Amino acid sequence: MRIALMQHTARPLETERNLGLIDDAAAQAREQGAQLLVTPELFAFGYVPAQIRAQVGAEEVDAARARLRGIARDRGIAMVWSLPGGEAPDQRGITADLADEHGEVLTSYQKVQLYGPEEKAAFAPGEQPPPVISWRGLRLGLLVCYDVEFPEMVRAAAVRGAQLLLVPTALAGDEASVPGILLPARALENGLALAYANHCGPEGGLVFDGRSVVVGPAGQRLGELGAEPGLLVVDLPEITEESAPGSADYLQDRRADLHRHWL
Amino acid sequence: MRIALMQHTARPLETERNLGLIDDAAAQAREQGAQLLVTPELFAFGYVPAQIRAQVGAEEVDAARARLRGIARDRGIAMVWSLPGGEAPDQRGITADLADEHGEVLTSYQKVQLYGPEEKAAFAPGEQPPPVISWRGLRLGLLVCYDVEFPEMVRAAAVRGAQLLLVPTALAGDEASVPGILLPARALENGLALAYANHCGPEGGLVFDGRSVVVGPAGQRLGELGAEPGLLVVDLPEITEESAPGSADYLQDRRADLHRHWL
Repeated sequence: MRIALMQHTARPLETERNLGLIDDAAAQAREQGAQLLVTPELFAFGYVPAQIRAQVGAEEVDAARARLRGIARDRGIAMVWSLPGGEAPDQRGITADLADEHGEVLTSYQKVQLYGPEEKAAFAPGEQPPPVISWRGLRLGLLVCYDVEFPEMVRAAAVRGAQLLLVPTALAGDEASVPGILLPARALENGLALAYANHCGPEGGLVFDGRSVVVGPAGQRLGELGAEPGLLVVDLPEITEESAPGSADYLQDRRADLHRHWL
Repeated sequence: MRIALMQHTARPLETERNLGLIDDAAAQAREQGAQLLVTPELFAFGYVPAQIRAQVGAEEVDAARARLRGIARDRGIAMVWSLPGGEAPDQRGITADLADEHGEVLTSYQKVQLYGPEEKAAFAPGEQPPPVISWRGLRLGLLVCYDVEFPEMVRAAAVRGAQLLLVPTALAGDEASVPGILLPARALENGLALAYANHCGPEGGLVFDGRSVVVGPAGQRLGELGAEPGLLVVDLPEITEESAPGSADYLQDRRADLHRHWL
């Protein structure tokens, strides 16, 4: 399977412009033969939690989702996008949707691990584990940004059978250790691949790190971007039970009966 | 605090010879100002599970432990060593003891995550979480080898307050991804330091990787050895709540109330 990751700089609340960038990325990804495009966290509105909370209503979110479904359908490519949840502002979370190439939303997820005081003030945390669905012979899971830094969240996806984890993110502040240290470990300790699509450059008072990356199930980097806007297109190796290195089988060997009492 | 890690090749069931190497390492570590020496998994008997099961009785284990306590006392250095548990062969596990510089055993641990068919046939798994105790102003935890590859096991130590995790190991088969990928992530995702002391070279039909390493709480390598025998002496940076990088506080932010139902 060939997948693509969009990395770009959104402009706060310039929804039409931001959706236009996603449309461009979808067209380009399809042209390069990708079957699936992952876009960054909250890209349509920009990563500006307080402004979204104050100024973006449910109608605007619904309109953005309709537009994104149209992009998937018109460009003929499956997509992962991230939006504010469509609920009333007080219960609204940060969500990710996976849609197929007909624009049908196959599954949705609400970010469980909210990051920092601004995000926690603006959004409600999810309470459900990451969804995992079968698509074109592969088991796909969804997480959002800070979620993936917690081994428990990725384990929850792996236990549900995830082979490829799709992760819209908004990582700022020169946190090189997330793509550099944590993501390879998450992949390796679960024997899954992971696609992490970030914003880059200055946006809403932050400077985003870029460094979008695809990591294979042995923890190897299959492709990555730098600090500039770009589209990362990666062919996934066939992922099988033997993809994990050595003879360790962490999912089978783990003593979950004990672990769950010790967390 | 200055700590030392012993890396060497044991000879199967040549207990006197192997204990002599530990004594040498203790003397050398003390001479170089270390306050604590970590030695590899099952070093006194060699990493030979089936032979230990068949040929090593409780009396020999007790004698080895008495000798190790004497080494700590005589050399004046705290030590972590690993022995078969002293129980009847059928309940015997792989254990680690932490002793102070007077040779008093402060705490013990039985390996929970046994590795591979030979180890599982020869030993019984532990059922208790890693112990964490205060020593010279630092909270020390114990794990053994394969345990540390499971994020849940290191989390269990971190939740119990561990700031420095002491890990006797026996890693063979060119598993460079364990020290290279997993250990830095374990440290970073819990904000703790980690000392991992391995065998090296050919021993009992395996070739051990060496690469003993000390990793700091930001996932940085504070010192490491290659494939040859050696003593690694490392000064730990002061470990505080601020040692973890960025503003992420994984222990505080993690949704353990949810995670424990999803494992």
